[in-house]
Amino acid sequence: MEFTAEQRLDDDVLEREFTLGEIPGILWTPGPAPAPAPLILLGHPGGLRRMYPRLAARARHCAHDGFAAATIELPGGGDRRRFAVVEQARADLRRALEAGEPVDDDIVSRLVLPLVDQAVPEWRAALDAILSLPEIGGPVGYSGGVIAIGVRLAVVEPRISAALLFAGSYVPRAMFDEARKITIPLQVLLQWDDEGNDRQLALDLFDAFGSTEKTLHANMGGHTGVPRFEADSANQFFARHLR
Amino acid sequence: MEFTAEQRLDDDVLEREFTLGEIPGILWTPGPAPAPAPLILLGHPGGLRRMYPRLAARARHCAHDGFAAATIELPGGGDRRRFAVVEQARADLRRALEAGEPVDDDIVSRLVLPLVDQAVPEWRAALDAILSLPEIGGPVGYSGGVIAIGVRLAVVEPRISAALLFAGSYVPRAMFDEARKITIPLQVLLQWDDEGNDRQLALDLFDAFGSTEKTLHANMGGHTGVPRFEADSANQFFARHLR
Repeated sequence: MEFTAEQRLDDDVLEREFTLGEIPGILWTPGPAPAPAPLILLGHPGGLRRMYPRLAARARHCAHDGFAAATIELPGGGDRRRFAVVEQARADLRRALEAGEPVDDDIVSRLVLPLVDQAVPEWRAALDAILSLPEIGGPVGYSGGVIAIGVRLAVVEPRISAALLFAGSYVPRAMFDEARKITIPLQVLLQWDDEGNDRQLALDLFDAFGSTEKTLHANMGGHTGVPRFEADSANQFFARHLR
Repeated sequence: MEFTAEQRLDDDVLEREFTLGEIPGILWTPGPAPAPAPLILLGHPGGLRRMYPRLAARARHCAHDGFAAATIELPGGGDRRRFAVVEQARADLRRALEAGEPVDDDIVSRLVLPLVDQAVPEWRAALDAILSLPEIGGPVGYSGGVIAIGVRLAVVEPRISAALLFAGSYVPRAMFDEARKITIPLQVLLQWDDEGNDRQLALDLFDAFGSTEKTLHANMGGHTGVPRFEADSANQFFARHLR
């Protein structure tokens, strides 16, 4: 991991850009950090530059409660090498949605599975690098989408102790068996009228999660309409499980 | 309204029993109350004495955040006159559940509608009396079950500004039209595996509510397994809307 830029934000949060091989990422750490901070990995749909304002706001909100936060670019996202098979599937998904057709599991599988297969080892490598820094402690939480990446990470990565999953993207049926294997505490966010997601699929996925502690927060509105108060609720969730 | 007993609890909360005609009730007010406190009405399934430990815990949790809380006995509950038609319906419901039969809307209507029709004017009369006390201000919230009573109150009682509804009991389909008329902010609690409720009915009801601000919190477990952290979340919800 190589730091490429750093700035101290006006709330004293330290923001550092880094690269991990070819993968760009950002790490935010709380201002005066007396002890190693627990870490929250911030999931997103890809395109770090485009997502930056929202990611930075989420990260700073984490930092204000004493958490470090980090994110990396997704495979095929931002300036990274295009991911042909996923782009084809994304075009098929867009076409189906525009035509008002049901989104079939084949498209979802072609869109999501290759992304998960490539992204998850990258997140784990980022975790290795970030947890080696003295200012970062454990335990680790995952927060956000792509929900299928969060699901896979929650199953395979034992350092992740709790996950706040944003049910704002499709999950292939093949991953429901993985969902059943999750045992860590979950908080699941669902936008009731998400234009790019299937409500019933999200409810079925919530039902499938194997965790005994899982909470669904469903709010009105579309994909980007998650209410502001959910950010506080997220920090309270992580405070219960990462301290 | 006549106060019949009072005690100062160890956290300085003042608990006063009262009667309103034939209806017993309890009012809790925060210890040092510099300004009139907003009021939260605590709904419950009937049987004040049986429910007292849980109601008192909820009320004290409200009071610790500066809210007054009040509740009254339901029609047919506790020592009040039996409510023959409702008791018959309750016996029918129990029989259907024990036989593993689907709970049909006829039973639910016979159980719930008479209760709502009688209880709601009583809650409104209690509100008149309690809001006349100088230590109680507005606005008012409703918190708990019976959810059908909360639904009706949210529609007909303009002094109620926000409601936390516990989706832990059946609602007759006839009341879905009332649910569509609700416009106040709602937080809806659902126990995912509530043995005495229908999950899909609760999700349909949440969908029907007319409010633009409504949040569903679904947690694992049965009817009485609402996690402790939901009490904090409830106070945060009321703090957003009653202050």
